[in-house]
Amino acid sequence: MTRFEFEIHATDGKARTGTIRMRRGEIRTPAFMPVGTAATVKAMKPESVRATGADILLGNTYHLMLRPGAERVARLGGLHRFMNWDRPILTDSGGYQVMSLAALRKLTEEGVSFQSHIDGSRHMLTPERSMEIQRLLGSDIVMAFDECPRADRPLAEIEASMELSMRWARRSRDAFDAGGEHAERSALLGIQQGALDERLRARSAEALQQIGFDGYAIGGLAVGEGQEAMFATLDFAPGQLPEDRPRYLMGVGKPDDLVGAVLRGVDMFDCVLPTRSGRNGQAFTWNGPLNMRNARHAEDTGPIDHDCFCQVCKAYSRAYLHHLHKAGEMLGAMLLTEHNLSFYQALMAGMRSSIASGTMDRFAAAFIDRYRRPPG
Amino acid sequence: MTRFEFEIHATDGKARTGTIRMRRGEIRTPAFMPVGTAATVKAMKPESVRATGADILLGNTYHLMLRPGAERVARLGGLHRFMNWDRPILTDSGGYQVMSLAALRKLTEEGVSFQSHIDGSRHMLTPERSMEIQRLLGSDIVMAFDECPRADRPLAEIEASMELSMRWARRSRDAFDAGGEHAERSALLGIQQGALDERLRARSAEALQQIGFDGYAIGGLAVGEGQEAMFATLDFAPGQLPEDRPRYLMGVGKPDDLVGAVLRGVDMFDCVLPTRSGRNGQAFTWNGPLNMRNARHAEDTGPIDHDCFCQVCKAYSRAYLHHLHKAGEMLGAMLLTEHNLSFYQALMAGMRSSIASGTMDRFAAAFIDRYRRPPG
Repeated sequence: MTRFEFEIHATDGKARTGTIRMRRGEIRTPAFMPVGTAATVKAMKPESVRATGADILLGNTYHLMLRPGAERVARLGGLHRFMNWDRPILTDSGGYQVMSLAALRKLTEEGVSFQSHIDGSRHMLTPERSMEIQRLLGSDIVMAFDECPRADRPLAEIEASMELSMRWARRSRDAFDAGGEHAERSALLGIQQGALDERLRARSAEALQQIGFDGYAIGGLAVGEGQEAMFATLDFAPGQLPEDRPRYLMGVGKPDDLVGAVLRGVDMFDCVLPTRSGRNGQAFTWNGPLNMRNARHAEDTGPIDHDCFCQVCKAYSRAYLHHLHKAGEMLGAMLLTEHNLSFYQALMAGMRSSIASGTMDRFAAAFIDRYRRPPG
Repeated sequence: MTRFEFEIHATDGKARTGTIRMRRGEIRTPAFMPVGTAATVKAMKPESVRATGADILLGNTYHLMLRPGAERVARLGGLHRFMNWDRPILTDSGGYQVMSLAALRKLTEEGVSFQSHIDGSRHMLTPERSMEIQRLLGSDIVMAFDECPRADRPLAEIEASMELSMRWARRSRDAFDAGGEHAERSALLGIQQGALDERLRARSAEALQQIGFDGYAIGGLAVGEGQEAMFATLDFAPGQLPEDRPRYLMGVGKPDDLVGAVLRGVDMFDCVLPTRSGRNGQAFTWNGPLNMRNARHAEDTGPIDHDCFCQVCKAYSRAYLHHLHKAGEMLGAMLLTEHNLSFYQALMAGMRSSIASGTMDRFAAAFIDRYRRPPG
């Protein structure tokens, strides 16, 4: 049984393309993982998510522990069966969302106690409980429990937080390894912290490698620091992590963020942007984002994107998408989410083949030029 | 080119099964038409609607004239192309919805003037304008413009309203016939009025037949009179209409309403119930309706209905549907709408084959017994 293998097929500068092999299926990298927050990729049936080209989904520990509850999901046969997705699922640790969503948070060495944003009930997340929840869900790729401060906090605070996350990484590793059969069938990823600081990031990377993980995430970015600061950090952070292990940039991003991060050596991404934007009327295209609610689309019989091969662009006009979003019809969210996820997967596929053929620089330059050019 | 042919394959008591043949496809009767109010069957992609077994959709003149507008739909190539549905579409006349939804209505011999419930703009619906709108939409089955009073109004008022509707039926026929090519490719149905009164219904049926229509609808029912009064009216109303033309009971109904109406000779139905209920968490099953939000489903790994063959019942548990509806996830509405429409189509298919085999009485009795029995 293949637990977790990462094979790099080709590199092009710092960019890499490869395959992660797991029991539930293969993940082509660079990979974009749609977010299935509450056991559903919002407004999408799982077979439609797969049809866009997704190899793996992300599930949120924080949301699932509160509703329907990890023990309940386990009694119902695990998250895959519950939501009808038989391919790999990566679960986050809950660390980031408990700090951004929960009420009355209290952070200690032990973990985070908090009140549910849904019903006010009291809960506690620790490295041990996070590992238990991710095991109960049946996660294929488990994330270590960490704390993620805003990048603009004082450096001493960033440093103390990073050191806490490294102690939690050790406890996560131990708790994961004690998980019996689940530990033999799934992978555990550590999360580098240290905000924008190269020295702290290096210390974090060193600490994680001493513990040892199947792959390494870059945490603490995409928290408001802006693309320039993020790219400056990605100029050194991926290189601090082992070359032969997948690198996962959490919570990123816009299409041009993805291209810039792949150029800098990142292999995996997740973001709510294509799904959330789809519900809000924003379409991603090779010529940049479009607001489908804009009146200029009202009588446009063309597709969202003439260069898109998705099912939505084959069958529906901008005028129809405009109508559905103006009328608040669910189908508007369904179709635009499907298009956006398809666009993201097409972008990843384009990067994979460009890396394989040694043309990633040209692909990236042409993409950015077209994506950012004002519509003609 | 087949404009509109109705062939009855078998009868069983008053119940009939047959096929309506039109340019855009065949409609198996008794038929249930899902409602696509604003150019979308809410929460469903059109290919999924077709996969439930639907041969024809209903579109609402009132909603479409206000948004996106009939002239705009025509410029965009018609309703079929706009919403990506290439099979027959029946459009209502707007007469019923303008009286139930619009503000500041004023009814005259000419028609109804009103204010849009969306943006307050002023509009006028007349038989001529209703025919024009339905032509602009590219409707396959056009409904005559009528007035539909509540069944509990004084008889003199019902009578005057019915007589107005018959004058409007004449004007609808004339305006439809002047529609050029569209008139040669589509069908026009008259609408019988007269509420619960046998004498008025007979006069209405007579007036309609003197004008001559491709089929005849039974209007003015399912407006709060209750099933008993509706069935009492259906004991005579269908028999007042031509035997060789389809009979369409507008706005009906619950599964047991459909069975009772088919037994009394009705061929076509439309209703928002399966779609609206799907969004609200109500599932239809062979054992009666279920509220998926009920806590007793929270850990039920079984399907919504063990005897249902739909895609939803194959892949998803009651527990998952419960979770999605409690969490307010769009996928809950999507899956439950798909199940409910599948259930309605399975019920129609069951009636069609029972009529064909001469066992409709037994099918109906067994269905009603099981559907109304309290869960064991």
